[in-house]
Amino acid sequence: MPTELRIVSVPGIPEVTAGADLAELIGDALSACGLALEAGDVVVVAQKVVSKSEGAVVALADVEPSARAREWASAYEKDPAVIEVVLRESRRLVRMERGIVISETHQGFICANAGVDASNVPEGYVTILPRDPDGSAARLQATLSARSGVTVATIVSDTFGRPWRDGVVNVALGVAGLRPLLDYRGARDPFGRLLQSTVIAVADEIAGAAELVMGKTAGRPVVVVRGAGEWAGHGTGAMLLRPPSMDLFR
Amino acid sequence: MPTELRIVSVPGIPEVTAGADLAELIGDALSACGLALEAGDVVVVAQKVVSKSEGAVVALADVEPSARAREWASAYEKDPAVIEVVLRESRRLVRMERGIVISETHQGFICANAGVDASNVPEGYVTILPRDPDGSAARLQATLSARSGVTVATIVSDTFGRPWRDGVVNVALGVAGLRPLLDYRGARDPFGRLLQSTVIAVADEIAGAAELVMGKTAGRPVVVVRGAGEWAGHGTGAMLLRPPSMDLFR
Repeated sequence: MPTELRIVSVPGIPEVTAGADLAELIGDALSACGLALEAGDVVVVAQKVVSKSEGAVVALADVEPSARAREWASAYEKDPAVIEVVLRESRRLVRMERGIVISETHQGFICANAGVDASNVPEGYVTILPRDPDGSAARLQATLSARSGVTVATIVSDTFGRPWRDGVVNVALGVAGLRPLLDYRGARDPFGRLLQSTVIAVADEIAGAAELVMGKTAGRPVVVVRGAGEWAGHGTGAMLLRPPSMDLFR
Repeated sequence: MPTELRIVSVPGIPEVTAGADLAELIGDALSACGLALEAGDVVVVAQKVVSKSEGAVVALADVEPSARAREWASAYEKDPAVIEVVLRESRRLVRMERGIVISETHQGFICANAGVDASNVPEGYVTILPRDPDGSAARLQATLSARSGVTVATIVSDTFGRPWRDGVVNVALGVAGLRPLLDYRGARDPFGRLLQSTVIAVADEIAGAAELVMGKTAGRPVVVVRGAGEWAGHGTGAMLLRPPSMDLFR
């Protein structure tokens, strides 16, 4: 367990457009601010810029809403094209009531609006989640590690709501170079008692820590977390998805 | 939004027993390691030591399990006395199946086993959640602020599971001196678009960040988060509890 972490936001990431080489933009911003990556650093990147760089952006004018989307949108004063995109991004609806859509996305995430988001994009457009956030994280990791000459880890993050507690928290959608779960099972506490069921979602806690310095309106979508090197290793964001058979709230 | 945070664990907290003055123990440990609190620091304290200091510890030998607790324990090879404590700590059961109890505690938290925990306590005992975590946080805050001469914030934290995602994450049960929710509603993104529904659970993200340096087995239940001073202000942990009428997963 580390005894100290530093959470540092990276200034100077420009507006990201489809086809941009996001890893190179991040590398350039790191160079420009004089922050040299160290082995074991975790680079947390907001989903929004990953989606933009991958072209995971939908022009609402091109979307023909289904009858179901139009009906729902009309009942809750929503944009029918946005609802249509939400439905298309969903493989299963978990809750659809009171104007709120909680669904399981094709990637397996359960979240509001299938991750479809209208903030920080021009009017008339929405972003959708990256097709393969683990692949996105792996590509960022490969380029950032090669460019810096040290092995770093990457997390592609997004803010998700959760049942029972107000507010959203940042979680890890895609992970590369990091073991996302710290498993204490089999370890003993200071009283010699075996810990039975404690598995810590380290990658989600790192993503949450990073969010604290991101700022939704400040254009700081990239954060370096230093001191987490002991969790370096193989891992994916998919490892954080609870198997349906183990979940009581599907 | 801060641009950098430091997350530092505090070494040297001794084993905490009922009646111990936890705030003074923390102050002593801070002095001993040469870490002087600064205005705006957030001191995150694990629920376990708060419960111990407040005597929120139950001797299982004193617990007479109800028929229901015995039946459930027998079906899932659990300790009937532990299940009885879980039921007593619950004001409402949310799920009770497959050996898992998810309930709403008297404090309003929805979590596994009503927060009853057998780790890091002697054999034959369990801890329960503090009766009033916001009160606990406020007392710690008052003493730590008075002793250090600067106004700090405090969080009493515990690790909770969540639906859909594997692993537990640390969340804020009690809060003092900190606004736990950052509300972007009404703010505009760089495209001039009003942000509609983004409220960040800052206190939970701070608690999660702190957990990364706590260690379940390393006896480091206190963490200082530096750089979060802009969220200083009035707040409680209860503010993080979603009102039942707004929740789709009760």
